[in-house]
Amino acid sequence: MAAIVNPDLDRCRSQATFDPLLLTYFIYDGPEKTKRRRFLQHLALKESKKVNDCQLSELSKEEQYEVALQKVTATYRRIFELGLQDPADISLYRNTFIEGHPFAIHVLAFLPAVQKLASEEQKAKWLPLIERFQMIGTYAQTELGHGTFVRGLETTATYDPKTREFIINSPTTTSAKFWPGGLGKTANFVVLMAKLITNGRDCGLQSFLVQIRDLETHQPLPGITVGDIGQKFGFGFIDNGFLILKDVRIPRDNMLMRYAQVLEDGTFVSAKNDRLLYGSMTLIRSHMASACGRALAMAATIATRYSAVRRQSEINAGAGEVQVLDFQTQQYRLFTQIASAYALLMAGEESSAVYRTVSSEVETGNLQNLPILHALSASLKAFSSWQMMFGIEQCRLACGGHGYSSASGLPKLYANEVSACTYEGENTVLCLQAARFLIKSYNAAEKGEQLPSLAGFLQAPKGEKSRLTENLELDQLIAAYEHRAARQVREANSRFLSHLNKGATATEAWNQSSQSLVEAVVTFSHAFVVRAFIEKVTSSVLEPSLSSVLIQLAQLYALHGITRNSGQFLKGGYMSDHQLEMVENKLYELLAALRPNAVALVDAFEFPDGVLDSALGRYDGNVYEELMEYAKRSKLNKTEVHPGFFKYQKPFVDSLKSQAVAQSRL
Amino acid sequence: MAAIVNPDLDRCRSQATFDPLLLTYFIYDGPEKTKRRRFLQHLALKESKKVNDCQLSELSKEEQYEVALQKVTATYRRIFELGLQDPADISLYRNTFIEGHPFAIHVLAFLPAVQKLASEEQKAKWLPLIERFQMIGTYAQTELGHGTFVRGLETTATYDPKTREFIINSPTTTSAKFWPGGLGKTANFVVLMAKLITNGRDCGLQSFLVQIRDLETHQPLPGITVGDIGQKFGFGFIDNGFLILKDVRIPRDNMLMRYAQVLEDGTFVSAKNDRLLYGSMTLIRSHMASACGRALAMAATIATRYSAVRRQSEINAGAGEVQVLDFQTQQYRLFTQIASAYALLMAGEESSAVYRTVSSEVETGNLQNLPILHALSASLKAFSSWQMMFGIEQCRLACGGHGYSSASGLPKLYANEVSACTYEGENTVLCLQAARFLIKSYNAAEKGEQLPSLAGFLQAPKGEKSRLTENLELDQLIAAYEHRAARQVREANSRFLSHLNKGATATEAWNQSSQSLVEAVVTFSHAFVVRAFIEKVTSSVLEPSLSSVLIQLAQLYALHGITRNSGQFLKGGYMSDHQLEMVENKLYELLAALRPNAVALVDAFEFPDGVLDSALGRYDGNVYEELMEYAKRSKLNKTEVHPGFFKYQKPFVDSLKSQAVAQSRL
Repeated sequence: MAAIVNPDLDRCRSQATFDPLLLTYFIYDGPEKTKRRRFLQHLALKESKKVNDCQLSELSKEEQYEVALQKVTATYRRIFELGLQDPADISLYRNTFIEGHPFAIHVLAFLPAVQKLASEEQKAKWLPLIERFQMIGTYAQTELGHGTFVRGLETTATYDPKTREFIINSPTTTSAKFWPGGLGKTANFVVLMAKLITNGRDCGLQSFLVQIRDLETHQPLPGITVGDIGQKFGFGFIDNGFLILKDVRIPRDNMLMRYAQVLEDGTFVSAKNDRLLYGSMTLIRSHMASACGRALAMAATIATRYSAVRRQSEINAGAGEVQVLDFQTQQYRLFTQIASAYALLMAGEESSAVYRTVSSEVETGNLQNLPILHALSASLKAFSSWQMMFGIEQCRLACGGHGYSSASGLPKLYANEVSACTYEGENTVLCLQAARFLIKSYNAAEKGEQLPSLAGFLQAPKGEKSRLTENLELDQLIAAYEHRAARQVREANSRFLSHLNKGATATEAWNQSSQSLVEAVVTFSHAFVVRAFIEKVTSSVLEPSLSSVLIQLAQLYALHGITRNSGQFLKGGYMSDHQLEMVENKLYELLAALRPNAVALVDAFEFPDGVLDSALGRYDGNVYEELMEYAKRSKLNKTEVHPGFFKYQKPFVDSLKSQAVAQSRL
Repeated sequence: MAAIVNPDLDRCRSQATFDPLLLTYFIYDGPEKTKRRRFLQHLALKESKKVNDCQLSELSKEEQYEVALQKVTATYRRIFELGLQDPADISLYRNTFIEGHPFAIHVLAFLPAVQKLASEEQKAKWLPLIERFQMIGTYAQTELGHGTFVRGLETTATYDPKTREFIINSPTTTSAKFWPGGLGKTANFVVLMAKLITNGRDCGLQSFLVQIRDLETHQPLPGITVGDIGQKFGFGFIDNGFLILKDVRIPRDNMLMRYAQVLEDGTFVSAKNDRLLYGSMTLIRSHMASACGRALAMAATIATRYSAVRRQSEINAGAGEVQVLDFQTQQYRLFTQIASAYALLMAGEESSAVYRTVSSEVETGNLQNLPILHALSASLKAFSSWQMMFGIEQCRLACGGHGYSSASGLPKLYANEVSACTYEGENTVLCLQAARFLIKSYNAAEKGEQLPSLAGFLQAPKGEKSRLTENLELDQLIAAYEHRAARQVREANSRFLSHLNKGATATEAWNQSSQSLVEAVVTFSHAFVVRAFIEKVTSSVLEPSLSSVLIQLAQLYALHGITRNSGQFLKGGYMSDHQLEMVENKLYELLAALRPNAVALVDAFEFPDGVLDSALGRYDGNVYEELMEYAKRSKLNKTEVHPGFFKYQKPFVDSLKSQAVAQSRL
């Protein structure tokens, strides 16, 4: 970037007390990976601009879809040409080139589903075609009438032993497949979840590979009705679709048969261990904390840089307008979100590590830690997406009016990312799944059983008092969150028991306690995140100048959560009023202490301008020029006078010219 | 509606313990007004459909703008033909006909600005033209570089006594007017805020009437650069614009001269009382709680009806899927938002009443209550928009995946309405303005002075204990909120003083306490809303069946706020742990108690389907059919195969046909 950097932003950078490059290395796992990252991002951005550098937000849906198709094909062409092999390289290159695309579910769900659910023979046949895009697929599970509750799915696959085929039907309005990305216009295959019926028996949900469009003409095959589902919040350029199947026949071999099978005569052979089927969901969820952290980090980068550039209002009369980053209320809004972004990134690393550990245990046949992995990934997914959702909007609102302009990049970021609260399992439902594990663990602990370390906090003695002092001891911060989580689990369990005692059935009692259970699960995730953040920062070898800033950030994260939920820390006298006041005072001190480092903390994420796609978040801070340029590019400005003026406005005005209007109010 | 109503929704309606019609009368001020309301809405919807019944969300920005122009001209044509006179009738008719339009600022700000700021002579000249749309204007205050802090505005109006003209300039990039609705393509006039310079002296901000486009050709006049600012969050069909002025000359008479004047020789005569200038802002803000309540009521209606229709998951295994409204977590999400919507509507009525009282005091020269009106309207605007913003998203997320579809009406509702957090004054800035009043009042109370009744809670004795019992005494709920507000104001004041004592200047100390001050202001507004809700419900003459439900709703609102902010109620031992547990238990009991009335509570708002514009919120509950119809109308479905397939996808796939792909991961 040759442009001159805004002097206020420049000064903020020079005020940092640590070297942001060291933090970048910390975030991206060392200098080598950081360099590789920069190299690939640079390459991707350069070529992405060559392909089509238009402003997506100004295009119609059809145009946006076409640009996305153009970009994703160009992306993969280059990925093949470059010979990229490492999945991390590929996904970084792709995600820098294009922010989302119609092949996303092909790559993220269709391919993995075949890898995971197909037999060796099937994989040998299909994977090479899938990898070369000779089959382009999506994952058709959700229906118009059913989402997270998969047992309610209605699509049927009835085995016909005469022809050795499955006959697939969506018998009702609500059984139409609905929402899969890439289904509307792009995919020619789907992995379809359907209720298997063979020999007159319902054998539950199974997956099938179903071709839906002709490979040459791209026309839907007989019995298939397929299309786009229309506009939605975010992802305007993706063709989420619907799919109705009427007597669609597929060969027996198209059932994905790694686990369960249907034999030629229609005999159903069930899966040996269906706990393994959860693997791929758990994998995606385990990574979602990091993805949420990344999205929040983008929002925080935009808002923090803009707040350094923006001068507005005076603190001391006559002393001139100050950078809005000097206002405590702005610091509170933004620094707590910078802290959250780091917290989610660290927690994501930790949960991915747990995933790897448990996965390798599973390889050796040890399934003991699967339940806690499932509970952790489910609850952390919910917690992270809720924090991100709230956080992105806080950052957006911190940008004043311009935070509403698409030029800021923030409306799109929110609209795209908030869906993380619902996809891969609706948050509340996931929390209730995790609650089962926590309640079971709590009761095991009460019986004196040993718990896995992640649930160990449930064994802590009751009636403790917080020993937190002005020094903000990190172990005491963790202890406070774990005490709170244990208390909330205990209270939710008591509520459940009291409903049982009043005569409710177990399922009714569970429902009547479910809001308490969800809240208990949130406190569990919160404690996990606080611990992950603190442990990651203290266990890494870091320059003291960096380490002290990261510890401040972790403290801010922990203190902020205490003040926002103070009742749960005061209850039972765990914390005193005095301690709570100290927590508040310390929080405000940390805001002031972090002020010189705010810009460096977001710079360290190293989001290229082309990825942030934000007039407000530009590295060089030339915000206002870019906002005006964006405005001038508006399609409404293609003509000086919009045709609607002559069509509607002028005739209307002329018709009123001579008419006396009766009222004085409009 | 001839269609059959969904039986689950029907059953919910029959379970109500009160007559929703009585509640409708309560909301809309009696049977007469309700009937008038229905009549006008019916008329407006019928004609609106005739004009253009397209799906706005599927159109490009240019098309959306044109439809909006078509509709708004049709609306006003009919308003004139019908001879509607009552402002309430006109705004109801208009808002039913069209949800927003390019004349909005003409009506809501341009016309009132001229009414308020022009001299009698000027009004006589301009108002008839404005009322007959012979002048179409907007209100040009905000600039690219300055929003809520109006003293920072940079546009200048320099008086030239030789020609008796003002010369208007936007001298810098940041001084371009930016954001005014209708400016981009529609308006031919603006009321412009600019820094008046006369006889070499800066005389502060004044308002001027400036013509920007030719009345016949609609081309910008010399010296004017004007256009649309591009895409934004919400209101895609409105042409928010920018305006750059270079040596634009307007006659002296075009300064709005009711208060301040510039004489022919350039002498500046300043306004006698500029406190009166705040009137119009205060008026709009005083009404915003009601507007926020209405938006939240729409979201709650959509989500509640859909939750009655949607069956998903079982509570008791094998007993069949239940309405999601039976899940406690869903009840918690929705019923607390129904309660919030009612609370904001009642608080809005109360604040409008305060506005009327204080305005008539002002008419008689008594300005004593202006500061509290200003503080109340500012803080309540912030509180209401924050609650609404949070609440709409809770309702949207409660609709699962379909809450993301534009067919639900919810994405648009959020994107349009959330801007209430920023327009008419950024929320945080407004809270800090209100804080000045509260701190001043607190200190006056400490000195033993009598406070106006709205601030009377600051005089309550310290060290009290809550006397709330299982009966949920309504006066004790109010007392709890007022105790909390008084405590938070006191704490913020102490923080301010302690910074002063440490040597900070008053302005620095204020900034260092500003987050505490904002939070104190929020508790003040919260207490106002709780009191307004409870007093309105208890002071009205209502059928006992209705009254008991509304009291439950008010209790739910109050208890929910206590549980969400429990630390502020526990602090200093005001509430005991035991009382807090009781509050939680009661809250869950109220959720169950309100379940039979949930649908009736939202039905009573009587939003016509055409206004809700939601497949999920339809009165007849035929949700899934409508979602599928919406999908089929998607523009991407105009062709079976999108042109992009042949242009990009097929060439890409064909190029890979024979190629061996090196990696197994995409």
